[in-house]
Amino acid sequence: MRFSKLYAPTLKEVPSDSDIKSIELLTRGGFIRKAASGVYTYLPLGWKVIRKIEDIVRQEMERIESQEILMPIVQPAELWQQSGRWEDYGPEMMKLEDRHNRSFTLGPTHEEMITYLIKNELRSYKQLPLSLYQINNKYRDEIRPRFGLIRSREFIMKDAYTFHDTEKSLDEAYDDFYKAYERILEKIGVKYVAVDADNGAIGGSDSHEFQMLADTGESSILFCDECNYAATDEKAESGEIYEFNDEKDKELELKDTPNVKTIEDVANFLEKDIKSIIKSILFKGRDGWVLALIRGDYEINISKLRGYLKDQTLHMGEPQEIKKEFDVETGFIGPIGIKNIKIIADNSIKTIKNAVVGGMEKDKHYINAVFERDFKVEAYVDIRIVKKGEKCPKCDKYLKEKRGIEVGQIFKIGQKYSKSMEAFYTDESGKQKPFFMGCYGWGISRTMSAVVEQLHDKNGILWPKNIAPFEVAVVIVSMKDKEQINMAEKIYTKLKNNGVEVIIDDRNVSTGFKFKDIDLMGIPLKIVVGKSLKDGKIEIKLRNEEKGELYSIDNMESILENIEEKLNNYNPAKI
Amino acid sequence: MRFSKLYAPTLKEVPSDSDIKSIELLTRGGFIRKAASGVYTYLPLGWKVIRKIEDIVRQEMERIESQEILMPIVQPAELWQQSGRWEDYGPEMMKLEDRHNRSFTLGPTHEEMITYLIKNELRSYKQLPLSLYQINNKYRDEIRPRFGLIRSREFIMKDAYTFHDTEKSLDEAYDDFYKAYERILEKIGVKYVAVDADNGAIGGSDSHEFQMLADTGESSILFCDECNYAATDEKAESGEIYEFNDEKDKELELKDTPNVKTIEDVANFLEKDIKSIIKSILFKGRDGWVLALIRGDYEINISKLRGYLKDQTLHMGEPQEIKKEFDVETGFIGPIGIKNIKIIADNSIKTIKNAVVGGMEKDKHYINAVFERDFKVEAYVDIRIVKKGEKCPKCDKYLKEKRGIEVGQIFKIGQKYSKSMEAFYTDESGKQKPFFMGCYGWGISRTMSAVVEQLHDKNGILWPKNIAPFEVAVVIVSMKDKEQINMAEKIYTKLKNNGVEVIIDDRNVSTGFKFKDIDLMGIPLKIVVGKSLKDGKIEIKLRNEEKGELYSIDNMESILENIEEKLNNYNPAKI
Repeated sequence: MRFSKLYAPTLKEVPSDSDIKSIELLTRGGFIRKAASGVYTYLPLGWKVIRKIEDIVRQEMERIESQEILMPIVQPAELWQQSGRWEDYGPEMMKLEDRHNRSFTLGPTHEEMITYLIKNELRSYKQLPLSLYQINNKYRDEIRPRFGLIRSREFIMKDAYTFHDTEKSLDEAYDDFYKAYERILEKIGVKYVAVDADNGAIGGSDSHEFQMLADTGESSILFCDECNYAATDEKAESGEIYEFNDEKDKELELKDTPNVKTIEDVANFLEKDIKSIIKSILFKGRDGWVLALIRGDYEINISKLRGYLKDQTLHMGEPQEIKKEFDVETGFIGPIGIKNIKIIADNSIKTIKNAVVGGMEKDKHYINAVFERDFKVEAYVDIRIVKKGEKCPKCDKYLKEKRGIEVGQIFKIGQKYSKSMEAFYTDESGKQKPFFMGCYGWGISRTMSAVVEQLHDKNGILWPKNIAPFEVAVVIVSMKDKEQINMAEKIYTKLKNNGVEVIIDDRNVSTGFKFKDIDLMGIPLKIVVGKSLKDGKIEIKLRNEEKGELYSIDNMESILENIEEKLNNYNPAKI
Repeated sequence: MRFSKLYAPTLKEVPSDSDIKSIELLTRGGFIRKAASGVYTYLPLGWKVIRKIEDIVRQEMERIESQEILMPIVQPAELWQQSGRWEDYGPEMMKLEDRHNRSFTLGPTHEEMITYLIKNELRSYKQLPLSLYQINNKYRDEIRPRFGLIRSREFIMKDAYTFHDTEKSLDEAYDDFYKAYERILEKIGVKYVAVDADNGAIGGSDSHEFQMLADTGESSILFCDECNYAATDEKAESGEIYEFNDEKDKELELKDTPNVKTIEDVANFLEKDIKSIIKSILFKGRDGWVLALIRGDYEINISKLRGYLKDQTLHMGEPQEIKKEFDVETGFIGPIGIKNIKIIADNSIKTIKNAVVGGMEKDKHYINAVFERDFKVEAYVDIRIVKKGEKCPKCDKYLKEKRGIEVGQIFKIGQKYSKSMEAFYTDESGKQKPFFMGCYGWGISRTMSAVVEQLHDKNGILWPKNIAPFEVAVVIVSMKDKEQINMAEKIYTKLKNNGVEVIIDDRNVSTGFKFKDIDLMGIPLKIVVGKSLKDGKIEIKLRNEEKGELYSIDNMESILENIEEKLNNYNPAKI
């Protein structure tokens, strides 16, 4: 490719809505352009990177014998009504009507569609297991699209689905995908971590996320150096042991607590340890109100609560709504005297004796509340946010935290969709049974941004070789110097014929301009044909090297070998 | 690939909504499944075919130095409002609103989007010409989706756009695309014809369509054997010469014509030649009403009229609307006495002396109407439908007709979008000028159906080798016969290692069942390992051969050579 012909409009200025480094660099480097809020066009360079990511993903899907298909983007509402997600999915689902007023959605995911597809056609246990995947656009109407390709409204995903007659078979496929995802990340060439994750709106049992590490990442990962435990903050558990104390039960008392605003205020006012206060928070979900209890110094993890209650619509109650429903201000909610409500408690309150709880009226708190005696709890479960510094749940060490960007997630969804959509196969004895299913997502367009978040410096992007738009750039320093042109063209042609993906910068602009563009675009290796050509030398420099090296042009073969070796050893993620 | 692992659910029965052969065979052969009216899923076999078509198109786009990008499917309304097509495009445009009530469309085409993309970024004449393309979904909300992938609502297109500083440069690119499209059709391996075409809603000057020939095709093509003139019926011109007669002008007379319903009735009643009657038809468009005149034995071609008036919203007036507006029944409309209306006449009326025209009141016609004397015409143009048997416009012979399916169309759109959307470049002298543009579409998913329409027989599809899902099928006749299995596996492995795309039918089903599936799926070459293996022989049969040939397995190398030669010479389109 000739740079003079390439459509890659680079920009000096930082675009005004660059809320994250990758969107700045991908825009400035001429990889993408915003078309509308959360909607992007991939320019030739960006599309090259995307296609390379797709190819790596395809290779690994083929290796585990997943078959590629393509499902529609526009999906009929009926399928989503059957699974119950037409209402549950919430306002992130983009909906439309056709000219006959039939309702459709722009698929945010394809579980319903694939279940509908195989229903009545995948009939026999003999055909199982089956693994199908597609690479396709997905749509999520984010309330505030941000971080460029990381939280966009139109994005490219690989999504795979597997069908099984036994849980064991599902476990095997899950393991295949787990390994395939690790290979994809290694082929791309980035630092990553696989973590225990929450199933969220997809449902099912086990789930893992694959996170590319980046300081700017949206996700917080809690991990243990010692035993390799790692989980998202939504899912992370703690090895913390709650100390029982041997206090005697005291008598329940309602106290005035005027003007207290926070848990700390209550602790100070009543001269109590914050760990002896039970925080009470009201949530509203599909089946009404739920009261969640947790120790005063901890926070509720809504993902865990949603998971336990199997209700993704669950959200924290609004103060006005709570006032209307329970006639109490949010600061004084408590489990004593509240009626007709499900009470779920975090394990952390089990060891609190003589607790402080809200008094269910303004400016009042109870002291010496004793559970089972003064209030009943439906279940004690883990519904709290675990933080770094806490004990690892798997060993004796303590959890650390790092940040990442989720690029892949795999789920055992079991029989959730096959049951609700009545997708059955016939087993050996002739019985109809719902499939076990797995589902496996990979964010293709998001991967491009995530790599840039991990691999950039002040001059621009550092693409790993396998997904770089070009591996090598040959720079002609002076377009007036025929010798430079001839030598550069010669090297360009040789590399091209050797199968190297190379671009020649033949633009009539200054050398500084050329270097800046090539660094910004993150091309792994640069060959400079300039003044030193008079001494029979050219310069070769890797993107992450401080300085280039001069090579004599006498032995072209050895130069080519050098280039190949440098490229093969190039690993910007390891530095 | 092993057939036992392939997800290709074949069907014996003809699906109930098979309104065209390709949708029947692609559904029965396990290539596609309908997901909703006009919306399809591509199963593994169908997706393989689509990917091969895409690859052929990509190769030819690269050869003419078009650069691949990807634009959004979801496009903001503002762009379409700027070009004026938000209203003009009509109800085929699928529209939606996001959660903030902003309007979007699912792009039926991308002229607006690409013009917006390059605007302010493609700045200098030095960067021209530029050619960009994408392969992406398009959406058209057909009132009655039909013919499967041929008139679907969600479909895959390749669309390319070029930008130029001169018309000459546009002409060159247009020519490049013309030739690239011919090469694509030749690589696919089908009979086709390139025809003069109407620009329709895209606008601009020249246009050509590339039609795959098929008796079931939607498009009618008029062509000349002698000089190779070919055009769609929307565009076709005629070499017909209208004979002048030397009749004297007579006096205009209003006659009673009670109960006449058709042009023939009028001719009979008034004892006039039908060729002396002027048919008057009212159309309504963006700027109001238009009266079109044509000779009694001819029909108005609405595409030509729309093209002449540059108004794609033009449609025939409804009788009630006409009655309300002009106080006349449709059978008695005429150019005399009608007020404040643009009158456009087909060339065919120029030679009519003393014509019969509608009287503008019920049961009345004028006789002896003379144009210029009795009514004024704004323009005489070609707005009629040309039919087979008419004279070729380019030579002395007569036009014939055949049917085809449009798979590609190229357009010189000139400055239509660059002017309306103010997309300018700077010329050598520093002046701002609107680009000249070309646009070039190719229906990827439609191509799959069109090939099947042209190439099928009573047993199923006949894929040309280059887009077949598999080139060769190896059939094991008896899954109980170890020798058959071993030999089949050996041939399968050899072919695979030689880079042949091969499937082995290792299913535990009857031979008849296997043969039927493989023929239905249209696999070019079948190798049968059956009973004759005992005599050291296997059977090789091309899909379009009546009978297979037996080959001795003694010389495996020569068998492989034979297979390769047979495949290379296989051309189902030529038979």
